[in-house]
Amino acid sequence: MDDCIFCKIVKGEVSAEKIYEDDLVLAFLDINPVNYGHVLIIPKEHYQWFYDVPDILLSHLMTKSKIIGIAIKEALKADYVALAVVGIDVPHFHLHLIPRWIDDGMSNFWPTKKYGEGQEKEYADKIKMSLRRI
Amino acid sequence: MDDCIFCKIVKGEVSAEKIYEDDLVLAFLDINPVNYGHVLIIPKEHYQWFYDVPDILLSHLMTKSKIIGIAIKEALKADYVALAVVGIDVPHFHLHLIPRWIDDGMSNFWPTKKYGEGQEKEYADKIKMSLRRI
Repeated sequence: MDDCIFCKIVKGEVSAEKIYEDDLVLAFLDINPVNYGHVLIIPKEHYQWFYDVPDILLSHLMTKSKIIGIAIKEALKADYVALAVVGIDVPHFHLHLIPRWIDDGMSNFWPTKKYGEGQEKEYADKIKMSLRRI
Repeated sequence: MDDCIFCKIVKGEVSAEKIYEDDLVLAFLDINPVNYGHVLIIPKEHYQWFYDVPDILLSHLMTKSKIIGIAIKEALKADYVALAVVGIDVPHFHLHLIPRWIDDGMSNFWPTKKYGEGQEKEYADKIKMSLRRI
């Protein structure tokens, strides 16, 4: 896509600190890292959402993410590597690989809610019904 | 693992609102949802981190996550579905599939930092060096 910043990085029109590249995927440092060494991995082809990415390409991207995740962990002596796809900032699917330390002071997650009586089953039923139609 | 809550859900020793199940993976509602309809998908076998999960199993889990993601989006008329692996709460790999709405009031991400002069290349080099050793 012409106006997509990640497509421009793929084409070399915008620079980035590349970590890994092959015919299908590209991994580079996020310029706004949550922790230093925060990597983004993207399919070179433009897809907006993870559910748009073809299975075989997503599998390849995950296989590479595992290896890059281990490299991040080892290189930075991180306690673990978090993984996230949050969505709407850049509309080109990108998986965040974020080095984390137990004591890095970041919250682990968004605030959570509780289900009321019977409400959990109601949501499960809705999703299962939709799943049967796919 | 005997004391793992997710292994207990797999074995049926702890109940959960199941969304999808096959021989390899199980998807069920998170009892502490970020938004209602928040699903967890896990491999039935116990692995702690995403980089521990065998490629073929992770691929299967991602393929099913795509379908479940679409079902969540359609069933709940969500704007999109976020995906996260945050790590250390339950030591059995689980992918969060979270329905999101543009106006749901949740922050999109953790706070971010900036790299100082030359620091970005330094981090990229460290990770690439580690990557070459894997």
